[in-house]
Amino acid sequence: MEPVYYLEVGKETSVFEHAWKTRLPVLIKGPTGCGKTRFVRHMAEKLELPLITVSCNEDTSATDLLGRHLLLDRETRWIDGPVARAVREGALLYIDEIAEARPDAIVALHSITDDRRELFLDRTGETLQAAERFMVAASYNPSYQRSMRELKPSTRQRFVGMSFSFPPEELEARVVSHETGIDGKTARALVKIATKTRSLTELALLEPVSTRLLVDAAKLIVSGLPPRLSGHTAIAEPTTDDPDALAAVRQIIDLHM
Amino acid sequence: MEPVYYLEVGKETSVFEHAWKTRLPVLIKGPTGCGKTRFVRHMAEKLELPLITVSCNEDTSATDLLGRHLLLDRETRWIDGPVARAVREGALLYIDEIAEARPDAIVALHSITDDRRELFLDRTGETLQAAERFMVAASYNPSYQRSMRELKPSTRQRFVGMSFSFPPEELEARVVSHETGIDGKTARALVKIATKTRSLTELALLEPVSTRLLVDAAKLIVSGLPPRLSGHTAIAEPTTDDPDALAAVRQIIDLHM
Amino acid sequence: MEPVYYLEVGKETSVFEHAWKTRLPVLIKGPTGCGKTRFVRHMAEKLELPLITVSCNEDTSATDLLGRHLLLDRETRWIDGPVARAVREGALLYIDEIAEARPDAIVALHSITDDRRELFLDRTGETLQAAERFMVAASYNPSYQRSMRELKPSTRQRFVGMSFSFPPEELEARVVSHETGIDGKTARALVKIATKTRSLTELALLEPVSTRLLVDAAKLIVSGLPPRLSGHTAIAEPTTDDPDALAAVRQIIDLHM
Amino acid sequence: MEPVYYLEVGKETSVFEHAWKTRLPVLIKGPTGCGKTRFVRHMAEKLELPLITVSCNEDTSATDLLGRHLLLDRETRWIDGPVARAVREGALLYIDEIAEARPDAIVALHSITDDRRELFLDRTGETLQAAERFMVAASYNPSYQRSMRELKPSTRQRFVGMSFSFPPEELEARVVSHETGIDGKTARALVKIATKTRSLTELALLEPVSTRLLVDAAKLIVSGLPPRLSGHTAIAEPTTDDPDALAAVRQIIDLHM
Amino acid sequence: MEPVYYLEVGKETSVFEHAWKTRLPVLIKGPTGCGKTRFVRHMAEKLELPLITVSCNEDTSATDLLGRHLLLDRETRWIDGPVARAVREGALLYIDEIAEARPDAIVALHSITDDRRELFLDRTGETLQAAERFMVAASYNPSYQRSMRELKPSTRQRFVGMSFSFPPEELEARVVSHETGIDGKTARALVKIATKTRSLTELALLEPVSTRLLVDAAKLIVSGLPPRLSGHTAIAEPTTDDPDALAAVRQIIDLHM
Amino acid sequence: MEPVYYLEVGKETSVFEHAWKTRLPVLIKGPTGCGKTRFVRHMAEKLELPLITVSCNEDTSATDLLGRHLLLDRETRWIDGPVARAVREGALLYIDEIAEARPDAIVALHSITDDRRELFLDRTGETLQAAERFMVAASYNPSYQRSMRELKPSTRQRFVGMSFSFPPEELEARVVSHETGIDGKTARALVKIATKTRSLTELALLEPVSTRLLVDAAKLIVSGLPPRLSGHTAIAEPTTDDPDALAAVRQIIDLHM
Repeated sequence: MEPVYYLEVGKETSVFEHAWKTRLPVLIKGPTGCGKTRFVRHMAEKLELPLITVSCNEDTSATDLLGRHLLLDRETRWIDGPVARAVREGALLYIDEIAEARPDAIVALHSITDDRRELFLDRTGETLQAAERFMVAASYNPSYQRSMRELKPSTRQRFVGMSFSFPPEELEARVVSHETGIDGKTARALVKIATKTRSLTELALLEPVSTRLLVDAAKLIVSGLPPRLSGHTAIAEPTTDDPDALAAVRQIIDLHM
Repeated sequence: MEPVYYLEVGKETSVFEHAWKTRLPVLIKGPTGCGKTRFVRHMAEKLELPLITVSCNEDTSATDLLGRHLLLDRETRWIDGPVARAVREGALLYIDEIAEARPDAIVALHSITDDRRELFLDRTGETLQAAERFMVAASYNPSYQRSMRELKPSTRQRFVGMSFSFPPEELEARVVSHETGIDGKTARALVKIATKTRSLTELALLEPVSTRLLVDAAKLIVSGLPPRLSGHTAIAEPTTDDPDALAAVRQIIDLHM
Repeated sequence: MEPVYYLEVGKETSVFEHAWKTRLPVLIKGPTGCGKTRFVRHMAEKLELPLITVSCNEDTSATDLLGRHLLLDRETRWIDGPVARAVREGALLYIDEIAEARPDAIVALHSITDDRRELFLDRTGETLQAAERFMVAASYNPSYQRSMRELKPSTRQRFVGMSFSFPPEELEARVVSHETGIDGKTARALVKIATKTRSLTELALLEPVSTRLLVDAAKLIVSGLPPRLSGHTAIAEPTTDDPDALAAVRQIIDLHM
Repeated sequence: MEPVYYLEVGKETSVFEHAWKTRLPVLIKGPTGCGKTRFVRHMAEKLELPLITVSCNEDTSATDLLGRHLLLDRETRWIDGPVARAVREGALLYIDEIAEARPDAIVALHSITDDRRELFLDRTGETLQAAERFMVAASYNPSYQRSMRELKPSTRQRFVGMSFSFPPEELEARVVSHETGIDGKTARALVKIATKTRSLTELALLEPVSTRLLVDAAKLIVSGLPPRLSGHTAIAEPTTDDPDALAAVRQIIDLHM
Repeated sequence: MEPVYYLEVGKETSVFEHAWKTRLPVLIKGPTGCGKTRFVRHMAEKLELPLITVSCNEDTSATDLLGRHLLLDRETRWIDGPVARAVREGALLYIDEIAEARPDAIVALHSITDDRRELFLDRTGETLQAAERFMVAASYNPSYQRSMRELKPSTRQRFVGMSFSFPPEELEARVVSHETGIDGKTARALVKIATKTRSLTELALLEPVSTRLLVDAAKLIVSGLPPRLSGHTAIAEPTTDDPDALAAVRQIIDLHM
Repeated sequence: MEPVYYLEVGKETSVFEHAWKTRLPVLIKGPTGCGKTRFVRHMAEKLELPLITVSCNEDTSATDLLGRHLLLDRETRWIDGPVARAVREGALLYIDEIAEARPDAIVALHSITDDRRELFLDRTGETLQAAERFMVAASYNPSYQRSMRELKPSTRQRFVGMSFSFPPEELEARVVSHETGIDGKTARALVKIATKTRSLTELALLEPVSTRLLVDAAKLIVSGLPPRLSGHTAIAEPTTDDPDALAAVRQIIDLHM
């Protein structure tokens, strides 16, 4: 498998490496599709750590993380959840959208995010001491958490933090080209469109246009769909349902393609 | 089985084909009964893909999509849910009304809608790599989602999008005739009724009159029920309970039939 | 068993017969006790269809409609729910108060109310093709649904509709006489009371006095209870708890008896 | 066992007997402790019907009424609930505080409260035809239901109704004497206290002082507790927690004893 | 075991004894820590009744009170809950904080708190007639129930009532001395502190300082902690988190010690 | 294992020791990361008590504390929960964030926090008398409980209390140095940053910067990350998501490093 492509924006690699050296848990904040997950995959490769990912949602409970007894072939067997597996094997555990998970899930992570570094499986009575290479990273999108669930301070202050945003234009264009093989000029035009819409706060988009959407648009163009239609399909439609906002985003696309 | 009848309105077929070539998930937005489901069935036939459909509701959970252990003949057997089946067999998976589903169901789709294209079955510990021909389409009705559940941006931005609305009058009349065998003139009259009511926003109908309702009215007429009574039964009553709105729609029907 | 007594008010029988010929699902709207259920029983007899009824409530789920596995005599057996039974046997399925049911129950009906006419039992993995004579009718009371649950447009537009209200006075009196053997004069007096209270919207009754209540009052009179006391017991008390409204309804009764 | 002591206030016995002759379900409305339950026990004796009582609460479900499978001695056995038992045995079924029960419980009663008189046990697939002597009575307290759950009109209109209130003074005093053996003068004084507090609507008591409380006070007096202290204990304290209202009720007691 | 120490404040012992003679259920109202539970333990000793206590909370259900089937050593065995045990054995049943329990739990108590004195175990189908010496007492704190759950009148009016508050100063000081062996002067100082804070309604304490807290403070003093620090620890801190109120209570303590 | 490092701030050790001598439960109040847990670990060592910790969350129920039956190797075995274990073994039981737990969990602790010192396991019918050395400590953060769950007075008044806040600057700097080996000057600078941000109430931070975060920052500095970047990562990011507050905290960091 070829290595994950990642372009450094600031000093995020260095911060992560020092967190790894001191085994401090890392909380990565930033908007949807800005590269948080890709960065974690990149760091796992660089540090030669196996990566175990959990995507949280409003129903994620401690059981989902720690494990459960399953009735298999008429026998009850304990199946480790992703957190227990990561703790045992010494993996990099990545908790995507941690603020979404239910409180019992989040509290179950407390003892592995402080100096105890141990995990208590209350269903089996087992206490796991984390393997030496075990580390925790978590992601969190502050912008749409504001009106929903908040991470409690007693959880937040167990992590050191990093804020991500979109890369500078030149870097983002290089990512788009690298991922899709599209020519540099079209890549730059796509990034221009993104930058423009991201600055138009009066559009009230749910979330800014992500790098991921630029990559999707480029893929459609490369596959032969006309550029403007590709932009409408991959950039405008996923960003908003509001007819006025939709028209505005389409206009920006038509202007640059 | 005869092929699904579908009349192209814009470039939707071409967009879908390029999404298929690049394996990007497609989100189809539009009002009830405008032909979203029919379009997906048409594309499945055209691309020669088996079609697996899931109709979501407020109780749809990850278990409903992924599968469950069932106790059959005193033996516990794993039964694939529709998503697991589609991933294994390489089908076109169609998630109807995706915004209705519970958050754990939606998040369970994340890993098959990005470049991982894999599905994790947490109950069996199995990770399925999607078959080469696997593709995802989803539908969504923005107009009555506005005040209810919203798709989160982190889900939306995994899809490329298409907006559907009702076909132009001439095309819609051809659909009605083709489906029911009714004469062209009556078909056009029915479409006129629909167009008229759709434009009367002061009626505050829950949803515009759909093509489906015109087809139902035509069926009743063909079966021998008088045209006006058919219109009242199949167009007016399903659209509203409000006595004033009901009277207004009936008047429009009586004017054209 | 003697046939269900039903007096036609408008063209409801003809509409239902054409819906049956075209196999379109029928939604019958109207207030409590106006004869919706009786009409459906009448049509089942006329069309010689077995009738299977489901009375919905806020807890009615898909499982209640489709069926469940039961542990009987230490064996797990699948028991068809009423909808599955109707689909297999080709019955007239009557879903009473459909708007009350939970969303998963309503969505489970979608595939049997469009041209697929098939039912998917997710617990057994079975897909049932509806028997040729299978048909769906549903009832719905718009007046007290207004502030509670609403049928979603994507459900409503799968049905053709009929609005019921109370029959004209002469007809209603004939129903009361036929059901109870009461003399025509008293029957007409009872109907007068009902008509009068139905028109007094300032009483703010929860629901208009139904034909059912007139029948109950007539039964009590025939059994020997004095007419006024019968009216108070069977008409006034079930209609309201408000002391002023109660007094007003009693006064109307005393005036006519 | 000696017969239930019941003093008729109006024509309630006659109304109930005619409802029984016509097998119409009876809904008895009235405040706490005014004798609704005692009246039903009296009627059961008079009509020589076995009495089966269900006291409803916010958690009462259809399962509680119809029955359930229980695992006993390693065997699964069906245990009839109180409603199924009453239907099979032909008892008088008394549903105390029906408005409290959950909607699925209330709807499960629909088919035994109309002319079908049958009960469907969905867990066993059995349909029970009610025994010839089966009858339903229910009670309901409109005064504190007003702001809580309401009986739906489609349920209410299945019953004929009777409104209960407290008996006239002389009758109520006879009840108190008969139940406790207290002398007539003290009984009348207790009733005076009740009448006085019931008329003081400015006290904002949760519910009026019931006959039951007068009986309790008389019991304490007969057992040797001083009359005023008995009144404070059995009449004032159970009626209110508000210090001012408590003082007012105590003052009324001290004035009459 | 030495007898429970209880000092009578008013006529509570006599009232309870007459309630016992007439087998009327007793509801004891009063603030936290004023001696309700101790009084019940005292009465149980005096009347030579075994005492069975249930502490209710928002999750207390009928099952918790009546009992449940448990799977023990592969056998299903019925285990009586505390109420069933008390009914069978003829104990004094004490329901602490009855208003907290869930409605199904409270309603399950109805038949043992009226003249039926029987308990229906719906899970076993058994009806228990209460043993001759069975009696019910319950406690309830009106001051913080006001904004939360209320006992329904239909429950309250099954009990005779008693209001408790804190004992007069001299008596309370004797309780504190007796429980801890502290000298009379310090005991009186502690009671002075309590009386003072209880009268300062502007402090907005959640609940007045209880006798229990004075006993705790005395214990710390006797064990050697300085009096003021003991007061701060056992009286001020448990009563409030508000910095201003905390300072005010501390000042009162420092003034008297 | 080396002993827990703890620096006394006031008389907390003495208060805890006297609470231990009199076996009174202790409630420790204070902000996140101020050393409550460390203090309890220190006291457990000093008093030579085994320490059993429960971290509560919104889903913590009585079952989580008391224990449960588990099906292991086809046998049902009772597994003690942490509270039952502590009661049996005579450990120091530490209930972290007690106010978060569900009410049934909190009430289950009542009988071990008063003079009964016994625990009732309702699932096994067992009553455990606490071992002689058993003691309870609990923690609670009043500042963010204010708008959420409150401990009920009937629970609070079972504890004696202690308020914790951050240690004085010199002491806090010694803690930071001791934990990380950082030089005294940088440690003092870090504490200065904390003191400064804690006093800026206009920043509206969720919680003040904790000692824990200073330790994290020192660890990153010692591991080689530049001091300012370490402060941004370990102090600014975990404390707030607000861009303005973030900038303000960063500025304070840059000023002192």
